[in-house]
Amino acid sequence: MEERLCDDALELEKFVSQMKEIMVEHVNNSRKPDALVLDYKSPEELKNVNTWHPGFMGKLYAGTNPVGIISEMLITLLNANSHVYHVSPALTIIENTVSQSLAKLLGMGEESGGITCPGGSFSNQLAMITARTCMFPEIKTKGYHAFGKKLMVFTSISGHYSIDKTAMTLGLGIDNVIKVPCDDQGRMRTDELERLIKNSFQRGEMPFYINATAGTTVLGSFDPLFEIGKIAKRYNLWFHIDGSWGGSLVFSNKYRHMIDGANLADTFVLNPHKMLGTPLQCSFLLARDKKIFSQSNSLKAEYLFRQDDDLGDGTVGCGRRPDAVKLFIGWKIYGIQGYQMRIDHAFKMAKYLTLIVRNNQRFKLVLDEPPSLQVCFWYLPIGIDFNLENKRFRKMISMITKEIHRRIMYRGKFLLDYSPTIIGEKEFPCFFRIALNAPSICEKHLEDMVNEIEKTGEDILEWYEEFDDEINGEMRNGVNGNGYIDIENGLNK
Amino acid sequence: MEERLCDDALELEKFVSQMKEIMVEHVNNSRKPDALVLDYKSPEELKNVNTWHPGFMGKLYAGTNPVGIISEMLITLLNANSHVYHVSPALTIIENTVSQSLAKLLGMGEESGGITCPGGSFSNQLAMITARTCMFPEIKTKGYHAFGKKLMVFTSISGHYSIDKTAMTLGLGIDNVIKVPCDDQGRMRTDELERLIKNSFQRGEMPFYINATAGTTVLGSFDPLFEIGKIAKRYNLWFHIDGSWGGSLVFSNKYRHMIDGANLADTFVLNPHKMLGTPLQCSFLLARDKKIFSQSNSLKAEYLFRQDDDLGDGTVGCGRRPDAVKLFIGWKIYGIQGYQMRIDHAFKMAKYLTLIVRNNQRFKLVLDEPPSLQVCFWYLPIGIDFNLENKRFRKMISMITKEIHRRIMYRGKFLLDYSPTIIGEKEFPCFFRIALNAPSICEKHLEDMVNEIEKTGEDILEWYEEFDDEINGEMRNGVNGNGYIDIENGLNK
Repeated sequence: MEERLCDDALELEKFVSQMKEIMVEHVNNSRKPDALVLDYKSPEELKNVNTWHPGFMGKLYAGTNPVGIISEMLITLLNANSHVYHVSPALTIIENTVSQSLAKLLGMGEESGGITCPGGSFSNQLAMITARTCMFPEIKTKGYHAFGKKLMVFTSISGHYSIDKTAMTLGLGIDNVIKVPCDDQGRMRTDELERLIKNSFQRGEMPFYINATAGTTVLGSFDPLFEIGKIAKRYNLWFHIDGSWGGSLVFSNKYRHMIDGANLADTFVLNPHKMLGTPLQCSFLLARDKKIFSQSNSLKAEYLFRQDDDLGDGTVGCGRRPDAVKLFIGWKIYGIQGYQMRIDHAFKMAKYLTLIVRNNQRFKLVLDEPPSLQVCFWYLPIGIDFNLENKRFRKMISMITKEIHRRIMYRGKFLLDYSPTIIGEKEFPCFFRIALNAPSICEKHLEDMVNEIEKTGEDILEWYEEFDDEINGEMRNGVNGNGYIDIENGLNK
Repeated sequence: MEERLCDDALELEKFVSQMKEIMVEHVNNSRKPDALVLDYKSPEELKNVNTWHPGFMGKLYAGTNPVGIISEMLITLLNANSHVYHVSPALTIIENTVSQSLAKLLGMGEESGGITCPGGSFSNQLAMITARTCMFPEIKTKGYHAFGKKLMVFTSISGHYSIDKTAMTLGLGIDNVIKVPCDDQGRMRTDELERLIKNSFQRGEMPFYINATAGTTVLGSFDPLFEIGKIAKRYNLWFHIDGSWGGSLVFSNKYRHMIDGANLADTFVLNPHKMLGTPLQCSFLLARDKKIFSQSNSLKAEYLFRQDDDLGDGTVGCGRRPDAVKLFIGWKIYGIQGYQMRIDHAFKMAKYLTLIVRNNQRFKLVLDEPPSLQVCFWYLPIGIDFNLENKRFRKMISMITKEIHRRIMYRGKFLLDYSPTIIGEKEFPCFFRIALNAPSICEKHLEDMVNEIEKTGEDILEWYEEFDDEINGEMRNGVNGNGYIDIENGLNK
């Protein structure tokens, strides 16, 4: 140990050289034709998932890039803590500058700015904490228990679950998050929003916070931000936009119209670690008035915070990774144009996948025109009629989706995802959800992936017939016999 | 951009090679005799702080080490997300295994385990959320507003401010965090704790949570965990230990007795990124019953979480960095013995610094025997009598400490910190707080640092006399004229 300490520089050179070999080999391997995105193993002989592989299409993030790697190496080398200015002066200035640039790009105005949080959920959490303190400062000191009215939160039924978790955390209660229905494209219905707000006021409650979603998790839908912003203003509610996924569209001239209305937000979340390929985590909470974070969240802990520039004071954390540095370096190297190319390429791939799925009669798109980068569809075995009204069909199609998914995961060439959802008033059973994000994805990968699903679908026909009786039995008895048939309960859990 | 995408492996090789040179040079430079820990610049020509420098003694973390660097490189390369098992199988198993090993090392029992959070504040937050849901599950759904009794939290006056921020976040209200007085060594007084709990019950409130601190932020004091644990049990309160700083002593046979009683905790926070040199962030929230996190915090978001092994389900976050990997790799390479050597070396340095400060009549120790790795003291100019009862003396000594600190920061050879505190009933004006943590610190650095303070103290004599009249004036008028003289208000802020 003692010796080790003296040789830090030497040891670092040796370690990083070895690590470089491993890294380059890892990335090279991920692009070989026979590469696996997941080398399926029992827990005893486990490997991990390779997010650099173009077959990684299961989540809203993807592998990072060499620029991302060196920005993380820089952060690690500095081992810097962006909680107070005097131990991280340059990084504090970078965080302020990048946040302000992002907020201005979104049209949030001259006084706008922001702060990073360790992920979109914590950004959503800090937004609601800040909103509550700004609107009802006495809750900060006396607590919600002493408050006269019940605070109510509004989000669409397709909004992220972190809104519920935040309501749980803040002591508002999950039951007091009102889920506004969506239209048939998965967007919040503003007529319903306004009706529900009015009803809540009439019940003597205190509506205070609307969460609009710019890019929902499952379908990639965009709530009508401009309309929602007007309603928030009409009823004096805090207007928060969860743009964790879709906020990055601000970098694309072609698609930024999808977040029109962002300028009306009081607070806005944007996660470059999703659509821009910045390493995990990198999440910005932006505000129309950049001073609200320190004003509402500071406790003036004198042993630590002494300057207005101490960023940690505006959060509910203490030590912080300087995550803004990652977007700063990426933005410097790629530029807005580089990010635009990345986004536009992803849209091109989403449109291509939509096309080949639409033109294949074994598939059925969930939305005929996917709103952004998630393409969602079912595989339909030959001889089965598509009929969502039929409960038996819904059970069966969920079961088929999950079994195909399981087999594809096992083979490891693609990492896909599946999900159920609710659109309009209807429950939609499990479908494939393909997230097009990684710039390494090209047309060929999508064709291969569709072929893989189709081939697997044909393979399971025998398996499916075997389980057919079981489904019928369960339908009669109302029993949920195994882990693969849980859609009916799943949505209500 | 398109081209860039195809050449990821090549580009990575080039970037990492360049970065390696920068990193090795950075570390080499930090160990040269004339190196600066802070190269003071105006914001326009700013550099950052070098945490690898042995002069970085201002915070409870320090520079990391080559092992830390490569573990972060691995995490970045994988760009893995430990929220769900199926995209991070190996990392999920590592997090479970390391958490369980840590909890068992602390004596928390066979069912114990834990989870990582992005920093100690978020660990403290998740502990209180979990406690509240376990004890009063209806608050999760109906909210605290509908709850019959006012929930009360107990922590010492020297506990970390994240307890207040958590009470703010959870809607409990900062006023409902009862600050238990400390004894003359900065430890929570258990007689006062018990009296305050009884009083709270008598007022019809609902005490539910005790936060004990194992290693306070300023003085490094350890609350009497065993006694507090017994009181928690007697009154059926949740017993949380904030061992963000001191929990790592579990790795040292020589000092682990300082956290005796840890085994009584319901939840325990331990931050390897502080005393063990793991890169920022690495914070574990451990529990006697590892199942409580998913049981109390899950919302069963079916689109995402499907397995008991999905770690994110037990948190209030979504995407997560697999921070446990950093302790896993460090523990594998250094072993318990390596960590013990690191800790024991830090104690040796703290004892040495205590000795030279005690033997120099220009200094006065705040605590004659510093409890752990923070050595706190005042510099006393010649001809000034040490008298804390005297308000004028307290103002002056704070002013002197801050001015010496400012000048030392400006020169950049050392990054120290200062703080006021309350011990017993008394307010203690600003003193130097030196945190001994980095293994690169040796006796010579401490002698140089003490000389630097002493020399700077002599230099400011003239400056001090100039301000002397001003102090007298302010004392008469009760005016706080400038940023350097704020101690009297500072503690009440």
